[in-house]
Amino acid sequence: MTIDAHILRALRAADAPAVSGAELSRQLGISRAAIWARIEELRSLGYEIEASPHQGYRLRTMPDVLHADDLLSLVAPRQVVGRDIRVFEKTGSTNDVVDKLARDGVPEGVVVFAETQTRGRGRLGRSWCSPARRGLWFSVLLRPNLRPESATQLTVAAATAVARALRGFARVDPQIKWPNDILIQGRKAAGILTDLSAELDHIKHVVLGIGINVNLGATDLPPELRRVATSLRLATGRSHRRADLAAGVLRELDADYARIRQQRFPDIAAEWAAQCSTLGQTVRIDIGGRRVHGRAESLDDTGALLLRTTHGHLERIMGGDVILES
Amino acid sequence: MTIDAHILRALRAADAPAVSGAELSRQLGISRAAIWARIEELRSLGYEIEASPHQGYRLRTMPDVLHADDLLSLVAPRQVVGRDIRVFEKTGSTNDVVDKLARDGVPEGVVVFAETQTRGRGRLGRSWCSPARRGLWFSVLLRPNLRPESATQLTVAAATAVARALRGFARVDPQIKWPNDILIQGRKAAGILTDLSAELDHIKHVVLGIGINVNLGATDLPPELRRVATSLRLATGRSHRRADLAAGVLRELDADYARIRQQRFPDIAAEWAAQCSTLGQTVRIDIGGRRVHGRAESLDDTGALLLRTTHGHLERIMGGDVILES
Repeated sequence: MTIDAHILRALRAADAPAVSGAELSRQLGISRAAIWARIEELRSLGYEIEASPHQGYRLRTMPDVLHADDLLSLVAPRQVVGRDIRVFEKTGSTNDVVDKLARDGVPEGVVVFAETQTRGRGRLGRSWCSPARRGLWFSVLLRPNLRPESATQLTVAAATAVARALRGFARVDPQIKWPNDILIQGRKAAGILTDLSAELDHIKHVVLGIGINVNLGATDLPPELRRVATSLRLATGRSHRRADLAAGVLRELDADYARIRQQRFPDIAAEWAAQCSTLGQTVRIDIGGRRVHGRAESLDDTGALLLRTTHGHLERIMGGDVILES
Repeated sequence: MTIDAHILRALRAADAPAVSGAELSRQLGISRAAIWARIEELRSLGYEIEASPHQGYRLRTMPDVLHADDLLSLVAPRQVVGRDIRVFEKTGSTNDVVDKLARDGVPEGVVVFAETQTRGRGRLGRSWCSPARRGLWFSVLLRPNLRPESATQLTVAAATAVARALRGFARVDPQIKWPNDILIQGRKAAGILTDLSAELDHIKHVVLGIGINVNLGATDLPPELRRVATSLRLATGRSHRRADLAAGVLRELDADYARIRQQRFPDIAAEWAAQCSTLGQTVRIDIGGRRVHGRAESLDDTGALLLRTTHGHLERIMGGDVILES
């Protein structure tokens, strides 16, 4: 962790209302003057930090900005996801940035956030609306020891992690729409895009792109999405501090990725199934040019959906557009 | 096609021993002086072109170089593969060059050759030996309308195309070792590397990397490969003009890719099976950390190998290292 991350962590962790400069200096092994300089820097980023000669420093309010050091301090400790966090003010697509990092050999676990994306993507090259500072638009690099056909496991893990984080953070009741949407009150609040780079029998890397509509107001959504999309703010009637939610999602994702590494995907699948709005439904699924109808029965051990078709046989579906028919 | 490609094509196609400048000028719609300038340029590249005042131009010999215009003229007409051909004197890896082109939106069918690669790759990041001007090291960009689990179809198609081209060109009897090696006299003469970029249910693009050992001598091979690898020259006792073989492979690959687009993969699979040294054999397959034993029975309709394991059940294998056990 950086010094700023340590300072923010110490300020947040303080049981007392304030932490003395001497105590911070001792904890971090740098001079009190250096601490002061870092505090000034954090103030310039919008962190309101009170300094009193007798009591020391006290964190009064935190701005709703994404700050890599703050995020690092919030996510720690973690095994893989969030070991390295980078925040961009603006990018084309965070998935493209992380894909480039992957090709340059960066280890798994790096997370790239952007305050806004100029070419945010959803599935099949569809555009993803990412208004500045209103949501969480980020991508995670993973290098799992999985075969390409098991990459769906990562999408399923990400969906459960996002749903769990939202539930804990904002006391909402999210539902998962297979394979990659998180709904709140029946409307899309978050989505997951899984970009796979592989040889035939071997994943080279996966970029998990996650978009969460946090503080969007109704007018932040394009008109064609207003009836089908929502945000955490629209659903709960209040704004939320994005960094705290981001850290929650990364911690949950780190935990789910550990379960995948320990070959405990069935645990994730069971949790997923309990909050899935797709299972048990009669659905139509559009897959490229093809359309299948049936009842969504369960997930298999690669994360694929098992559909009982209207002809009675069981079809294994890796991805597609699901439309409820019942 | 470029003017150089047209000129080379006309010179090669001439029934008469020579083609007059007037005839070339008429065919190509440019002046005789312009024809003369292009002929001079081709001569500087090593094409021996005789010019006699009465008869015109005659192509005496062609150098063993890869020249994009020459290759374009040799491959035409084609539907997809070889619409655009680029030749580099030296690259890191042609697969990486083509992957970059793919991300920049270049249409499918582009082929990139390199006279040598400094970081040529085989499967699983293994290095591939590509001595300068001794072989064909190239990559093809495809954007098939296939699901990721069917990408193996392209490897199978490439293997049959390479085997067919070698048979027609050099009268050798190549055998295919599943999934991606071409053997001559039991030794590896060519290999195929399939790099996949995909969403869960949708291939974005595939880069087929093909390496063919054409004119390598025994000392061009690293010592550890001399017992398991060979070249067309080592197998036939003579050198071969690489551009002609390259054009043959691209024409055959174009034909096989058309069969895939027409959903005629079973035809390719049948041709593949007839020259496969793996089917019917008792084998061990190493897949990542896992090892399976059994009898290689057949290919399924995605191109995966169906292995009858020693426990009697049928396992579907997407890729791996095959070792003959019988």
